[in-house]
Amino acid sequence: MNHFKEFERNEDGFTTPLENMLGSIKFNEQGLIPAIAQQFDSKEVLMMAWMNLEALKETLKTGRVCYWSRSRGGLWRKGESSGQVQELKSLALDCDGDTVLMQVDQTGPACHTGRRNCFFYAVEGESVKISGEVLIPPEELYKK
Amino acid sequence: MNHFKEFERNEDGFTTPLENMLGSIKFNEQGLIPAIAQQFDSKEVLMMAWMNLEALKETLKTGRVCYWSRSRGGLWRKGESSGQVQELKSLALDCDGDTVLMQVDQTGPACHTGRRNCFFYAVEGESVKISGEVLIPPEELYKK
Repeated sequence: MNHFKEFERNEDGFTTPLENMLGSIKFNEQGLIPAIAQQFDSKEVLMMAWMNLEALKETLKTGRVCYWSRSRGGLWRKGESSGQVQELKSLALDCDGDTVLMQVDQTGPACHTGRRNCFFYAVEGESVKISGEVLIPPEELYKK
Repeated sequence: MNHFKEFERNEDGFTTPLENMLGSIKFNEQGLIPAIAQQFDSKEVLMMAWMNLEALKETLKTGRVCYWSRSRGGLWRKGESSGQVQELKSLALDCDGDTVLMQVDQTGPACHTGRRNCFFYAVEGESVKISGEVLIPPEELYKK
């Protein structure tokens, strides 16, 4: 039973146990779901990364955003090496149960390049223009 | 050569031909890239869907958002059956070249359920609550 489909016609305010919905989430073949992080007050979209069920549960439990790193093949507690953590404000799933949207409070830059957000390659006509200043150089972000 | 990686240390305002960047986009095994649509003025995240290179090029060319429908296996000109189109205001790619973020002007509901956005399953503690009114019932949206 896909609860996302089942409940989509219910009214605003309808409530159901989280546990049921978690079981209906459509993870991809790698067991992952895309998760969008939006700065809760400015509404800036900061980044998109991936979560498995464990990362999603940890994020909800701890209130600190945890992704799944596809390159490292492990849990990625955002900010664990850079210090630039994401505090979770709220989390929602979409109609199909295949995308996560989070309102977060991002400390400093969300992007590994040291920019506030990852979407700095802006298409302008037949060109792409870098739009976004480096707030903290990567050398400083990732020094240990 | 991955131009996203190559150029990430360049400064704010750096410009390069779009054609080069399109060639470096990291489409997944199905040839698709996730595309986030954000209402340009309210900054509400409306939905996330997928694009192949053809859909992305058409979106940039026509200024009307076109996705790839995974269920139908074809181009999906948003609003072609519901009338609820997305006018493109601007488009950006992320640091890794594997996600698209669009600023759009959405006519009416973005969601197939008739809600303004797709992220209406809000997690609240151990529950999920529907948060978002149906603006136009699906029966009306999809009648022909």
